[in-house]
Amino acid sequence: MSQVTPKILPPTASATNPPLMIGDLLDSGVRMAGDNQIVYRDQSRHDYRRFRQRVHQLAHLLSAQGVKAGDVVAVLDWDSHRYLECFFAIPMLGAVLHTVNVRLAPEQIHYTMEHAEDAFVLVHEDFVPLMAPLAIKLPMVKGYLLCREQNQIDESAAAQSGLDVVGEYEALLAEQPLEYDFPTFDENAVATLFYTTGTTGNPKGVFFTHRQLVLHTLGEASLFQAPGFALLDRDKVYMPITPMFHVHAWGVPYTATLMGATQVYPGRYEPEMLVNLLLKEKVDFSHCVPTLLNMVVSADAIASGQVDLSGWKVLVGGSALTQSLASKARELGIDTRSAYGMSETCPLLTADILPSDIDKADFETQLPWRCKAGLPVPLVTLQVVDESGEPLPHDGRSVGEVRVKAPWLTQAYYKEEKRSEELWRDGWLHTGDVASLDERGFLTISDRIKDVIKTGGEWLSSLELENYISRCPGIAEVAVIGIKDEKWGERPAALVVANDLNNPPEADQVQAFLQTFVDQGKLNRWAIPAFIRFVDEIPKTSVGKLDKKRIRQEV
Amino acid sequence: MSQVTPKILPPTASATNPPLMIGDLLDSGVRMAGDNQIVYRDQSRHDYRRFRQRVHQLAHLLSAQGVKAGDVVAVLDWDSHRYLECFFAIPMLGAVLHTVNVRLAPEQIHYTMEHAEDAFVLVHEDFVPLMAPLAIKLPMVKGYLLCREQNQIDESAAAQSGLDVVGEYEALLAEQPLEYDFPTFDENAVATLFYTTGTTGNPKGVFFTHRQLVLHTLGEASLFQAPGFALLDRDKVYMPITPMFHVHAWGVPYTATLMGATQVYPGRYEPEMLVNLLLKEKVDFSHCVPTLLNMVVSADAIASGQVDLSGWKVLVGGSALTQSLASKARELGIDTRSAYGMSETCPLLTADILPSDIDKADFETQLPWRCKAGLPVPLVTLQVVDESGEPLPHDGRSVGEVRVKAPWLTQAYYKEEKRSEELWRDGWLHTGDVASLDERGFLTISDRIKDVIKTGGEWLSSLELENYISRCPGIAEVAVIGIKDEKWGERPAALVVANDLNNPPEADQVQAFLQTFVDQGKLNRWAIPAFIRFVDEIPKTSVGKLDKKRIRQEV
Repeated sequence: MSQVTPKILPPTASATNPPLMIGDLLDSGVRMAGDNQIVYRDQSRHDYRRFRQRVHQLAHLLSAQGVKAGDVVAVLDWDSHRYLECFFAIPMLGAVLHTVNVRLAPEQIHYTMEHAEDAFVLVHEDFVPLMAPLAIKLPMVKGYLLCREQNQIDESAAAQSGLDVVGEYEALLAEQPLEYDFPTFDENAVATLFYTTGTTGNPKGVFFTHRQLVLHTLGEASLFQAPGFALLDRDKVYMPITPMFHVHAWGVPYTATLMGATQVYPGRYEPEMLVNLLLKEKVDFSHCVPTLLNMVVSADAIASGQVDLSGWKVLVGGSALTQSLASKARELGIDTRSAYGMSETCPLLTADILPSDIDKADFETQLPWRCKAGLPVPLVTLQVVDESGEPLPHDGRSVGEVRVKAPWLTQAYYKEEKRSEELWRDGWLHTGDVASLDERGFLTISDRIKDVIKTGGEWLSSLELENYISRCPGIAEVAVIGIKDEKWGERPAALVVANDLNNPPEADQVQAFLQTFVDQGKLNRWAIPAFIRFVDEIPKTSVGKLDKKRIRQEV
Repeated sequence: MSQVTPKILPPTASATNPPLMIGDLLDSGVRMAGDNQIVYRDQSRHDYRRFRQRVHQLAHLLSAQGVKAGDVVAVLDWDSHRYLECFFAIPMLGAVLHTVNVRLAPEQIHYTMEHAEDAFVLVHEDFVPLMAPLAIKLPMVKGYLLCREQNQIDESAAAQSGLDVVGEYEALLAEQPLEYDFPTFDENAVATLFYTTGTTGNPKGVFFTHRQLVLHTLGEASLFQAPGFALLDRDKVYMPITPMFHVHAWGVPYTATLMGATQVYPGRYEPEMLVNLLLKEKVDFSHCVPTLLNMVVSADAIASGQVDLSGWKVLVGGSALTQSLASKARELGIDTRSAYGMSETCPLLTADILPSDIDKADFETQLPWRCKAGLPVPLVTLQVVDESGEPLPHDGRSVGEVRVKAPWLTQAYYKEEKRSEELWRDGWLHTGDVASLDERGFLTISDRIKDVIKTGGEWLSSLELENYISRCPGIAEVAVIGIKDEKWGERPAALVVANDLNNPPEADQVQAFLQTFVDQGKLNRWAIPAFIRFVDEIPKTSVGKLDKKRIRQEV
């Protein structure tokens, strides 16, 4: 805050200045498109009016179970209509929604639930075997509410597990009144909490307030309908393929709800179910990590054109979208776009909003733009700075760390003073990403700071090198890391998965392929990895990113 | 605020939580579409990058003149690129932009400028003759900055007026540095102030904060790009035909700037200039009051099809859009839409966002929907209540007062305690409008509370009756008021302007026309005005609305 003294006038005594509340997003969707549907797999569908009623019923259910404002309520579920209801009912009560990352190891899940001080837990029956042994070590949990698939009839599994189950979601919901008189409270109250895993130490809790989520949603709503992006609006059908525990599925369920768009939740990710839903529900828009999109476009039925996904728009994030993947998707009529953000940033920071001239150009011209992280979205201030914190020129070449300010960034790691200050040193949130900005202000991420390969006094981007290697014929996936080198400090090394595992290309074929880029002046000679190893699989993190920590251990 | 205690977590010491600042809207536009243009008449055009520089230069200019945070800066100008720059530079300094209603009587202008405690004034040369005699009665004004049209060369007019002019806008701007280091401050600081005239008493000052304007802009940006509305986005061309002193031209210049849309400012409203700009700049979207749209569609060259305005979208507000005007516009290919709000509400409350099925239907089906006030926009809570404050059913028939809550409503009338409490009694902002809500949640305004005609114990809507009379052949415009009646309490009376002033229809022709609606059961028999008077002109307020106060005096 600066030293100036602007004019601040008091409101009249009776005036109301409503805080920004997540409940307003739900009310908006019901008004905008009360008839639009919320779909869950092949199991259930209801309209927005019923969606609102179910949120109110869930609030009654939770209140009856003793959940009150300030409590933390954990959810372990697949992407579902229930989860969407939790996105609203729990924060609207003034409680905190803890979206548990079910892909973590059991001891990490226990750590996060204990650290979050979860007071009540909603658990899908698939996770009862995981949850039951942890329950004894979570004495502060008042009860477990079971989420059950409609077509499964085994009533006894949960009971046999020994978990203290208070009842089943649908059964208890059906008993509740249809209107809950939700409180209004400080917009800076915490609405959501979840944990992000780093390469070292325990998972870190990030949290977002009602204010932050409403502003993030308004920003996304404006952006997602803008020309040059145009992914989602009231009349489109949305299905996330990013887990809802991962930064609220990038906040899109909130945005889709504000707009009143039809929402399809696929439950447990099963390829056949996903494809069936895409086709049957005529899904217009999804978002996922590149790995998942790669799986889809490589699936036999899709790659062969037997299943037609043309017209599907996919927003890719989590890792960079490569030009080869974007092109491969394009051949199938799938329109890919990029966005950039992280758990700590709610997540949206930039999006590849194509400038008018690029938007009108052909695909080949668009391709490099579509694979950039994009433009900072409204209300985001983003800088790329050198090691002394000086902003670098927008020249498309100067590379430095990305730091940001925005009204929707986590204000600390939960109960982690030291790591919080590290994140926020100098009053900027430090992303840990290395990037450049071009003349048009488009951001291109080149690496994680800790993954940059320092070779011969220069910074070599592992991502850029991965991008080049991925274009080599016969290669499905690649990860590049730096390995210690006496002479150069570090040298690049590559783990590669071949398209045909039984018939991988030779390492020297890959090197010769890269040499062509060296000859074109696009790559430095010393960027060609001397060490290239073919593997069946590349280690990934729980959210599908290359796990460079484990890769380093394995190389 | 309720009694619950949600979880509020402190930020880490170094964390930044940026307040919502108007400057962020400008930065967004520059990023989104740096090449898009700001056009002023046939006099000037520059891109968003230069727009941003000019805002920074204006801030330097004003600072050099002693303007500081907390000061109120008045602007008397036509709709211009300069005015747009004031929309940003003045609030971004922490000062308050007072948009002076230049159509008020001089003594009222003096009243508002004295009441607002204006410290500095930007004045267009056309208003120097108005301003000069008032200046002596405004001793707190530190100086006057002259805004001059490029093609006028009389340097001496202002000097001769005796006004204490510090210089000319463009000349002084040219001397300033291109970057201003704007402060960051409390988002609840007042950004804008202007005066609204009622039927009694002095004009009332309403004011809006940075937070309110940013939220209103995000709401508009989401809405204006939504299907069923779809009026404005980055790739469209916008020209306001609502004065910028009137509720910041409905906030649309802020919204257009956030999006990076091309903006055309027409200066003084001259029919030929307006039409030339519409055609030459290929304007996609404008907004205005119905009176102005009626003037446009009735202009000979346009009505005859000599000038083609097809494709132009016009948002109508201020008064209700009648079906006859919407149909007349439609015949010329002009697409009309409605929105509702008032000075006190920033202004947007509702908009006729067509539901998907109506949006796909033919024009005749859409027509009644297009003429409703529409759906409450996101973050607005709106009720229609009876005299005891109970919400009425959404049945399309029950009529009561509209009251609202939203995060962008003026929190008081400036220095008017009693009237502020009257506006905000019960914690709701009382609009003074009478309306109904239909099954789909669409609002239809039927009248101002004070204009409702109470006849035979029933409420008769003057607006509804005006709507019926306006459909009578040969009638251009109509105003209905209640006149005292011994037997019925009140009876309706109509002032009518004929299409052909020399050959107006007979009163009994109008009555016979209305009888057809009585026969169809759409109108009560006692709604047919016994008193119908043909006039050349109907008195209007300074913003172009029917001035029922003066009409009552004249009847």
